[in-house]
Amino acid sequence: MSACGYENGLISIDEAIQYILSTPKTLATESILVKNSLSRYLSEAVYSPVNLPSFDQSAVDGYALCSQQTDSKEQVFQLIGEVRAGEESHLALSEGQAIRIFTGGKIPDGTSTVARQEIVKIMDDQNIRIVENLNIGVDIRREGEEVKYGQCLANVGQYMNIGSLAALSMAGVQRVSVYKQAKVAVVVTGDEVAQSQNSLSNAQVFDANGPLLKNWLKQYGIDAHVIHVEDQASAVTALFEGLKSEYDVIITTGGVSVGDYDFVRPCSFDVGFQQVFWKVKQKPGKPLYFAKYEKQQKNCYLLGLPGNPAAVYVCMQVYGKLLLDALQNKREQKSGFKAKITHDLKADHRERFLRMVATFNQSTLEVSALAKQQSHMLSNLMLTDCLVRIPAAKQINAGELVDGLFI
Amino acid sequence: MSACGYENGLISIDEAIQYILSTPKTLATESILVKNSLSRYLSEAVYSPVNLPSFDQSAVDGYALCSQQTDSKEQVFQLIGEVRAGEESHLALSEGQAIRIFTGGKIPDGTSTVARQEIVKIMDDQNIRIVENLNIGVDIRREGEEVKYGQCLANVGQYMNIGSLAALSMAGVQRVSVYKQAKVAVVVTGDEVAQSQNSLSNAQVFDANGPLLKNWLKQYGIDAHVIHVEDQASAVTALFEGLKSEYDVIITTGGVSVGDYDFVRPCSFDVGFQQVFWKVKQKPGKPLYFAKYEKQQKNCYLLGLPGNPAAVYVCMQVYGKLLLDALQNKREQKSGFKAKITHDLKADHRERFLRMVATFNQSTLEVSALAKQQSHMLSNLMLTDCLVRIPAAKQINAGELVDGLFI
Repeated sequence: MSACGYENGLISIDEAIQYILSTPKTLATESILVKNSLSRYLSEAVYSPVNLPSFDQSAVDGYALCSQQTDSKEQVFQLIGEVRAGEESHLALSEGQAIRIFTGGKIPDGTSTVARQEIVKIMDDQNIRIVENLNIGVDIRREGEEVKYGQCLANVGQYMNIGSLAALSMAGVQRVSVYKQAKVAVVVTGDEVAQSQNSLSNAQVFDANGPLLKNWLKQYGIDAHVIHVEDQASAVTALFEGLKSEYDVIITTGGVSVGDYDFVRPCSFDVGFQQVFWKVKQKPGKPLYFAKYEKQQKNCYLLGLPGNPAAVYVCMQVYGKLLLDALQNKREQKSGFKAKITHDLKADHRERFLRMVATFNQSTLEVSALAKQQSHMLSNLMLTDCLVRIPAAKQINAGELVDGLFI
Repeated sequence: MSACGYENGLISIDEAIQYILSTPKTLATESILVKNSLSRYLSEAVYSPVNLPSFDQSAVDGYALCSQQTDSKEQVFQLIGEVRAGEESHLALSEGQAIRIFTGGKIPDGTSTVARQEIVKIMDDQNIRIVENLNIGVDIRREGEEVKYGQCLANVGQYMNIGSLAALSMAGVQRVSVYKQAKVAVVVTGDEVAQSQNSLSNAQVFDANGPLLKNWLKQYGIDAHVIHVEDQASAVTALFEGLKSEYDVIITTGGVSVGDYDFVRPCSFDVGFQQVFWKVKQKPGKPLYFAKYEKQQKNCYLLGLPGNPAAVYVCMQVYGKLLLDALQNKREQKSGFKAKITHDLKADHRERFLRMVATFNQSTLEVSALAKQQSHMLSNLMLTDCLVRIPAAKQINAGELVDGLFI
C-alpha cells in the first residue's frame, strides 16, 4: 500500500471525538411508556412513587404467627384463616394465633413473625405446631426496606436497559421523559455499489454498507431509511436538500475522499452544511467527514463515512455511536478497556483501530489481532469482538497494554 | 431470612445448565435474506460465491500506468482516458500510457502499477508526470486476495451479528439457512401482580416481570406474547393447553414454589408436560422449574421462573438464554470471564449469582457486588453490568478470582 496519510491538516482521533461530542445540539424530549423505553436515555430523573415493598409482606410460603414467646419451639398455634398473595384481608392475629400465608402475601395485623412451612407441623384443621425456634420478625419484607417513597430511582442520562426498565416497572413508574432518538437516513453512494444483489456488473461490488448500517442502527434502536444514490452531483444535492429538513442525521458511505466523483462534501455545502472536520489521522477511515446544518428549530448532522466497509464498520462503532448518543445528551467517550496484547505489532505512521479477539487469561484481558485488516476487507468480522486503538509510529511489544472497546 | 435451601433433591447449577443444554430438540431451519438475519444462528456453512475482490481494482484515487521502467520518477505518461468506480471500460494501456482511475475502479488491461494522485503532476490535458519512484503492482487490490471463490466464509453455528452480516453481504451472499427462532409465550402468574399499573390494590405489586421478559426477548430477537393469568388451576391448565401446541417455549413467572396456589407445575402435568428438573441449589431462583412436552412433530418447553423479579432477571440471563440458544442448536455454556473481586464476601450455604459492577484496573477485570441483592429487590439493576457466580459455603477474600458473565 502507498504511504498516504502524511498530509497536513488532518486532525487526530481524539480531536475528531471531541468535535463529535461537542457539536450536536441535543434533541427534544418526549414522554413515553416505561415498557417502550428500551435503549433510550432519560431526560428527567425518576423518583419513586411508592415504598418498595409497598406493604409488609411474607418472604415465604408459611404461617404468620402472633407470639411473644422467644422459645417458640413446640409451641402450638390456632389457625384462624389464610391470606393469599394479592389478597386484601382484614384478618388480625392475637397471641397464640396463626394465619396461613404465601410469598408476597400482606402481613396481617398482629403478626410477630413468619414461620416458613418447612418448620411447621399441621396437627389438625385448626392447629399447627412450630418445630424450630423462631426469632421475632423473621421472613417479613418490610415496607420501604428497598426503596423509600420519593427516593431517586434513576438520574438524568440513565440508559434504559433491561434492568433499569424492570426496576422502574417494579416501582410502578409508568412513563419516563427521554430524549428523542435521531431520525436517520443512510445514503449509500458509489456507482460501483450494486443496487441489488442480482444486477452486478463486472466492475461492481456488492453492497455491504447498506445492510451493515441498517442493522447497526436497528440494534441501536433506530429504524433507518437506506437510500442508494448515483455519483452525480445534481442527484446528491437534490437528495441532501430533501433529507436535511426531514432527518436529524444523514450518514453517507463513500464519496468523501479526494476523487473527482467524491460529491458528498461539495454537495453538502450546496445545501447549506458547514464542515466541522474532514480527514482524520486514522486507519481505517482517513476521509471521515462531519458537517452540520443548523437553522433555528431544525438541525441536521452529516456523518460522511468512507466507502470501504471496514472503515464504515469501525467509524460507526467509534464515531457514529458517539454522535447518536450526543444527540441524546450523552456526551461521554465510551469507557472501553485496557488489555494485554499477545503479540508484537509493527509501527504504522497512522493511528489505527484494529479488529481483534479478546479472551480472558485468568482475570487479565488479552487481545490478539486478526489477519486481513485492510479497509476493503471484512471477512474477519466473523470473529472480531473488539476494536483496539494502536498509537501512530509506535512499535508494540507482546505484553504491552493497549486500549480497546468491545463491540 | 430463613435458612431454606438445605432440602434434599435439589440439583446444582451445573446440573441444571446441562439439562437445559441437552434437553431441547433443535428447531427446524429456514432460508432467510442475509439482511434480515441479525441475531440468528446459521444451520448451513456459507461458501463464497465470488472472489473478493472480484476483479483487480484500484486502492486509491490516481492513475493506472503501464511502464516497464523501475525508475519511474519524473517519467511522463500519456493520459488516454478515465475509469470510474463501477464502470466497465474496454480501455487498455500500452507502454508509457496512463488512465485516470478512482478507488474501486477496475484495473485496465496492461496496467503495471497505480500512482496515487498525490504523487502525480498534471502537465496538460494529455500528459502527467510521476514525482516519486513507484514499484510494480502498487495500490492494486488483487482479485481473490481476501477471499477465494468457494472458500468457507462462515460455519454452521455462526452467530449473525452486524459484522458477520456485513461480511456475507460483501461476498454477495443473498440468503442463508438459519435455525428458526422459538415462538415464545410469557405467562405472568400471581394474583398479587397488578394487571395494569393503574389498578393496584393494597396487597398487590406492580408487574416488573412482564416488561422485563418482553424487552429481554425483544433484544434477543423474539417478539414474545405476554399473558397474565389468575391463580386458578383451571385457568392455568386451559392456558397451557392452548399454548403448548402454538408455542415452542412457555416462560412462566411465579407459581413454581411450594405454596398451595403454585399451579404451574401441577397444571403443566395436566396438559402432558414432563418434569426435567425442579429446584436448583442457587440464590436467587431456587424454585426454577423446567419441563418438556414432546409429541411427534410438536415440542414445547416450559421454563418456570420464580416470581421475584431479581430471580427472573438472573434465571433469564443464565438459563433462558441457554434454552433459546439450544433450540437453535447452540449448545454451549456462555464463556463468561474470570475477575478479581475487590472485597471480602461472607459464605452462604447456597451457590449465588450476585449482581455486580465490572471495571478494568489496567488489564485486570475487577468486580464489586452491589447492595440489595435479595431476590425481591431490583433497584441495583440500574448499575449492574455483570453476574458473578459465588460457590456455596465458601468465604471469598478480596483479590480472589471469581467467575462471571457480562449482561
